Amino acid sequence: MSSVIELLKSHRSIRKFTTQPIAEDLFRQLVEAGQGAATSSFLQGGTIIRVRSPESRAQLSVLAGNQSYVQSAAEFLVFCADLKRAGNYCREYGKPFEGDYTEHFIIATVDATLMAQSLVTAAESVGLGICYIGGIRNNPREVSDLLKLPKGVYPVFGLCLGYPDQNPELKPRLPLSVILKDEFYNEDGDAQAIREYDKAVREYYRTRTGGGHGISWSEQVSVLLSEKSRPHMKAFLAEQGFTFR
Amino acid sequence: MSSVIELLKSHRSIRKFTTQPIAEDLFRQLVEAGQGAATSSFLQGGTIIRVRSPESRAQLSVLAGNQSYVQSAAEFLVFCADLKRAGNYCREYGKPFEGDYTEHFIIATVDATLMAQSLVTAAESVGLGICYIGGIRNNPREVSDLLKLPKGVYPVFGLCLGYPDQNPELKPRLPLSVILKDEFYNEDGDAQAIREYDKAVREYYRTRTGGGHGISWSEQVSVLLSEKSRPHMKAFLAEQGFTFR
Repeated sequence: MSSVIELLKSHRSIRKFTTQPIAEDLFRQLVEAGQGAATSSFLQGGTIIRVRSPESRAQLSVLAGNQSYVQSAAEFLVFCADLKRAGNYCREYGKPFEGDYTEHFIIATVDATLMAQSLVTAAESVGLGICYIGGIRNNPREVSDLLKLPKGVYPVFGLCLGYPDQNPELKPRLPLSVILKDEFYNEDGDAQAIREYDKAVREYYRTRTGGGHGISWSEQVSVLLSEKSRPHMKAFLAEQGFTFR
Repeated sequence: MSSVIELLKSHRSIRKFTTQPIAEDLFRQLVEAGQGAATSSFLQGGTIIRVRSPESRAQLSVLAGNQSYVQSAAEFLVFCADLKRAGNYCREYGKPFEGDYTEHFIIATVDATLMAQSLVTAAESVGLGICYIGGIRNNPREVSDLLKLPKGVYPVFGLCLGYPDQNPELKPRLPLSVILKDEFYNEDGDAQAIREYDKAVREYYRTRTGGGHGISWSEQVSVLLSEKSRPHMKAFLAEQGFTFR
């Protein structure tokens, strides 16, 4: 089995970093590794904002829901879905800009995500730790103003990068049978498999918090989907020109 | 420099495969590597449909815009964004289901994409080739009916996997300065850098097609964004329960 497979199976989010910086040449190699990922229709719809100013970091840390590692990680990157860069050339070639379809939103979001995940794998392969920060979507307007994001660009997620100063346990994943289906979508057996899995997740949380009841996967995600999650996103995206035509 | 970084920088889409199958144990390891990727709020919102039936493959190949490798690759997977699996537990725990916000669409799409890209890297690390198939969004209704995708699930993209029977050139990527920005979004210098890059892309296409004028990156993406790209997606997604609240 390839060591890359072992690497990918051993991912955990890191939220505590040493003060060691990432060498500039290595950092650039990581970004180029990210760029190597596939891109929809060759759009290359991902743009990375690298935030180094301590003031901006402090603000982003608060905007993301008081996640202190946004401030303390060696690097903090904001991955943006970007239709502006390509859209500029509609005008240049005398074509109308029609890049506000739902499909365009999907390809730009997918592009930014593919690039991020390859950058992450590159980083983890050299001993760095990472943590995705979806929390920047808590206050996307303020984040976008701080990063001067124009229309056609939105911040998909942030990413902390640095040398780990903790060694957390692996978080158990859903059984393979639940996420991999043969020929068509089929929930047979899932309820039973998830019941068993819930026990493992509860145990994982119990171990980490040193007691208590833990919380199962199914309880946790039922909360996520019974809440009006970031209900400001639609209006914010419309302001940025993503109107889901 | 880590060999993983070299691997990630050497990605090319493969569209011609040998007939060699992927060993079942290896295949499962690839999926587990995909599952190792980060997941938003622990949702694990990605589901893979593995299509092996030659009849279904033939249909999908046509539905994706007559891409024959959908049929000929050793494996063809459809990556779905899945809010149904988690949503089932809202009812179970007596909570309302509110999982139809734009934010939920983003996290499920991102989850499916992170999983896919880790699976892809695992595959490439053992000498397999891959090609993402965004073309399944050409006819998402027919694809979803064939794969029996219920409400709360949509097909984000397909993925061909197999042992390569071709060795295409690397496709040049945008200059680093264009996609990586310091502190804030800033287009200074981009136009000039893209002008140079356009030459490299035109040369890449000229070499591949053995003559002709080639097409630059800026021309290519200006077409993509001046077209009503897959305008059916919004209505299709609404049918699947993704209403962008």
